[in-house]
Amino acid sequence: MRKPGQVFLVGAGPGDPELLTLKAVRLLGCAQAVVYDRLVSAEVLALAPPLARMVPVGKAPKVHPVPQEQINEILIDLALDGLTVVRLKGGDPLVFGRGSEEVAALNAAGIPVEIAPGITAAQGVAAATGVPLTHRGLANGLRFVTGHCRDDRPLDLDWPGLADPDTTLVVYMGAANIAEIAARLTGQGMPASLPVLAVASATTPRERRLVSRLDRIADEAAAAQFSGPVLFVIGRVVSLYQSCPAEILAMLAARPVQEAAYA
Amino acid sequence: MRKPGQVFLVGAGPGDPELLTLKAVRLLGCAQAVVYDRLVSAEVLALAPPLARMVPVGKAPKVHPVPQEQINEILIDLALDGLTVVRLKGGDPLVFGRGSEEVAALNAAGIPVEIAPGITAAQGVAAATGVPLTHRGLANGLRFVTGHCRDDRPLDLDWPGLADPDTTLVVYMGAANIAEIAARLTGQGMPASLPVLAVASATTPRERRLVSRLDRIADEAAAAQFSGPVLFVIGRVVSLYQSCPAEILAMLAARPVQEAAYA
Repeated sequence: MRKPGQVFLVGAGPGDPELLTLKAVRLLGCAQAVVYDRLVSAEVLALAPPLARMVPVGKAPKVHPVPQEQINEILIDLALDGLTVVRLKGGDPLVFGRGSEEVAALNAAGIPVEIAPGITAAQGVAAATGVPLTHRGLANGLRFVTGHCRDDRPLDLDWPGLADPDTTLVVYMGAANIAEIAARLTGQGMPASLPVLAVASATTPRERRLVSRLDRIADEAAAAQFSGPVLFVIGRVVSLYQSCPAEILAMLAARPVQEAAYA
Repeated sequence: MRKPGQVFLVGAGPGDPELLTLKAVRLLGCAQAVVYDRLVSAEVLALAPPLARMVPVGKAPKVHPVPQEQINEILIDLALDGLTVVRLKGGDPLVFGRGSEEVAALNAAGIPVEIAPGITAAQGVAAATGVPLTHRGLANGLRFVTGHCRDDRPLDLDWPGLADPDTTLVVYMGAANIAEIAARLTGQGMPASLPVLAVASATTPRERRLVSRLDRIADEAAAAQFSGPVLFVIGRVVSLYQSCPAEILAMLAARPVQEAAYA
């Protein structure tokens, strides 16, 4: 039996190929097989050697062409063939990426795994739009949740805990459920006028942005008919967006600025 | 008067120079001046051109050799001299980095700013240790807070909201206050046996790790006498650490696994 290969679990970042890390580029350049998700761009895939075996296992919301268990099997089989395998995921493999499930399956099969982090979508959105994820006086912390349910089950989130106006709330995979999310947050006392930034396909040439408020985001995002993944940033930091509507800026100016807990 | 230069606000990542993005490396290579924080390593600074003007403005907890207002002035002055300035910060400039304050000051002075994100410490810790930030059945979301107070004031965090066992809690800059943080969380009902991972100088050759539990982390972290920045990861995901103590694994095995809300 051959010596098994190794699997590198690599974050491809939010979209812009220049946001790959040096480590991701090096590992891609050594790959003999690349197992990649739907959101990884052609420009990034082009960094793999011409003879590498390219294996798409794209997942879309509510469509799983390749179930997770089968992805695990593909990775194990390629590594047992002695190949150096790069498992390439959009964003960061350990932030809503199910990367740790693949690590567990590979570990159980005795295959060495190394992880390379990637810029996650929230960071791409922040850098592209200038909306910070934390800011003294506007947000002293940061929270990431997913707005996507498995198997059409209801969203099961800690709504009272999420309704914290001093924390920036970032919703991944929330396009289908943003109406419910916004309604639940206002139901817990978040101001209807709280600004919301929605960005589709952030850091790519197809990027589209919308600045709205909690009570209008669902209608306005639906009207925008975004394609590609949409990220929602909910919180007072959105007031720092360069072209934030004047009514939102006025609402924030009327509110006394709190001193945040960090230096 | 000369045409003003431009400022690039660049994330240097958690420490390992290979975790810089391609964009960060490109911008550093073009810099005529580099204004950098204490946590940026010599290997990263070596990527700047030999003739670039290097300006340290290092901040340490409770020591501010250069106040933020003065850093803003330095950036403005260098840009008004017509220079291409890279403002280099550890981690990501928009996650606890005060980057947005610098952006606001530069915007007010009419100086163009562009932002390049960086891998934040939590992502570096996750990739280095294999402890994911989310994992189906263990954490359906993720929260970042800072445990550092300005001017020795008491910590002002949303303790009831933070005590959510379904969310991974990451504490930045918490070494000085971890005893209070742990006590507050258990006071809000978080289990005393909840696992905690502490990592100092993550992704660098000086990296040190400690796996503990909520009721012991303060004593054990103090005993470890960490140097360098320490990040705390609090939550059930820590049970996935490769060498997690058996007692913590047993505690988690005894708890029924919840189905998380994400696919």
